[in-house]
Amino acid sequence: MDASALATAFGARLPAWVVDELADVPETLPTDEDRMRLVNRLAERNHREDTGGPFAALVVESGTGRIISAGVNLVLSSGLSSTHAEVVAVSLAQTRLGAWDLGAAGGPDLELVVNWRPCVMCYGAVMWSGVRRLLIAGDGPELEELTGFDEGPMREDWAAQFHRRGIRTTGDILREEAVEVFKDYGARRDAVVYNARGTATTR
Amino acid sequence: MDASALATAFGARLPAWVVDELADVPETLPTDEDRMRLVNRLAERNHREDTGGPFAALVVESGTGRIISAGVNLVLSSGLSSTHAEVVAVSLAQTRLGAWDLGAAGGPDLELVVNWRPCVMCYGAVMWSGVRRLLIAGDGPELEELTGFDEGPMREDWAAQFHRRGIRTTGDILREEAVEVFKDYGARRDAVVYNARGTATTR
Repeated sequence: MDASALATAFGARLPAWVVDELADVPETLPTDEDRMRLVNRLAERNHREDTGGPFAALVVESGTGRIISAGVNLVLSSGLSSTHAEVVAVSLAQTRLGAWDLGAAGGPDLELVVNWRPCVMCYGAVMWSGVRRLLIAGDGPELEELTGFDEGPMREDWAAQFHRRGIRTTGDILREEAVEVFKDYGARRDAVVYNARGTATTR
Repeated sequence: MDASALATAFGARLPAWVVDELADVPETLPTDEDRMRLVNRLAERNHREDTGGPFAALVVESGTGRIISAGVNLVLSSGLSSTHAEVVAVSLAQTRLGAWDLGAAGGPDLELVVNWRPCVMCYGAVMWSGVRRLLIAGDGPELEELTGFDEGPMREDWAAQFHRRGIRTTGDILREEAVEVFKDYGARRDAVVYNARGTATTR
């Protein structure tokens, strides 16, 4: 075959506003609430900027709260359906640290902070990333009900399965603030819900 | 914070041998067996080349068998834990076609061909990609038993959940050839099993 027509590389880039948004953020975010407040702020701005859906994530050092990476959902701007906020934050942390395993021996414990329970793809992405803790604003039907996104079929024992693999989960951190972002997004008439296969519609 | 230390982009690139390997492949692969034969061949070479694990995937037009993209597992070479073969093939197809939805109206039906049932992350990645069919060599415990990889917690109704979202699944295509690749990989003493969290060991 003529392999010259094939794409041989892919990638994604944060929009410039993310770096601007971080300029006034402290180097470390000591509490769970500090971490989630920033995530909710980035999620809100991401959909307002039309970079992607109302989702953001951070990789931080669990002990100090030092920010290792910040990610937002980039599906619309990158054209890649896998660039959910969790995959972006994990990939940027791995790029910065030069290692596919964020839990490699000798490094500090790292955690992923995200504004709702991950979808089924990101559930696996977190599992294989090496982070030792997942901090979420909440879980439950609100995300799907308010935004129209399909989160995919999750197992009832999802948190126990994380635990078996050395990943602790903490939930209900600034839950109401997260729900407000989803409500604002859901109230838009022009938002693209980018689940493929029949649910990819302008709302 | 000093945001200049953050990584703001990430990406992955196919090794040059993939393009070489495709040089003598026909432009179209009419049958399921034609498609899987190439996937098994790329999977075998990928671990021999130490580019990543023994996994490969193609995106092809279901009707004609025209190859849209070829991916291999790039975890070791890219340093990104999400670059499983399925994510790579889907991302390269989306890059080539310039669209996050491989099932967008007006295009031909596309399918993903992969040498075993996807792990939980790739299960979701396939679900959000827009492909309309998943063609696998097989499913069952052989992969985990022979290679040591953790595939993550899948639901019993995984195929029905695909079907509800407009994705057909076809299995048991050149199953024994796929198992042979996993056996060869499992027999290596120097292979890196790159699941994070305690299972990331040189075997």
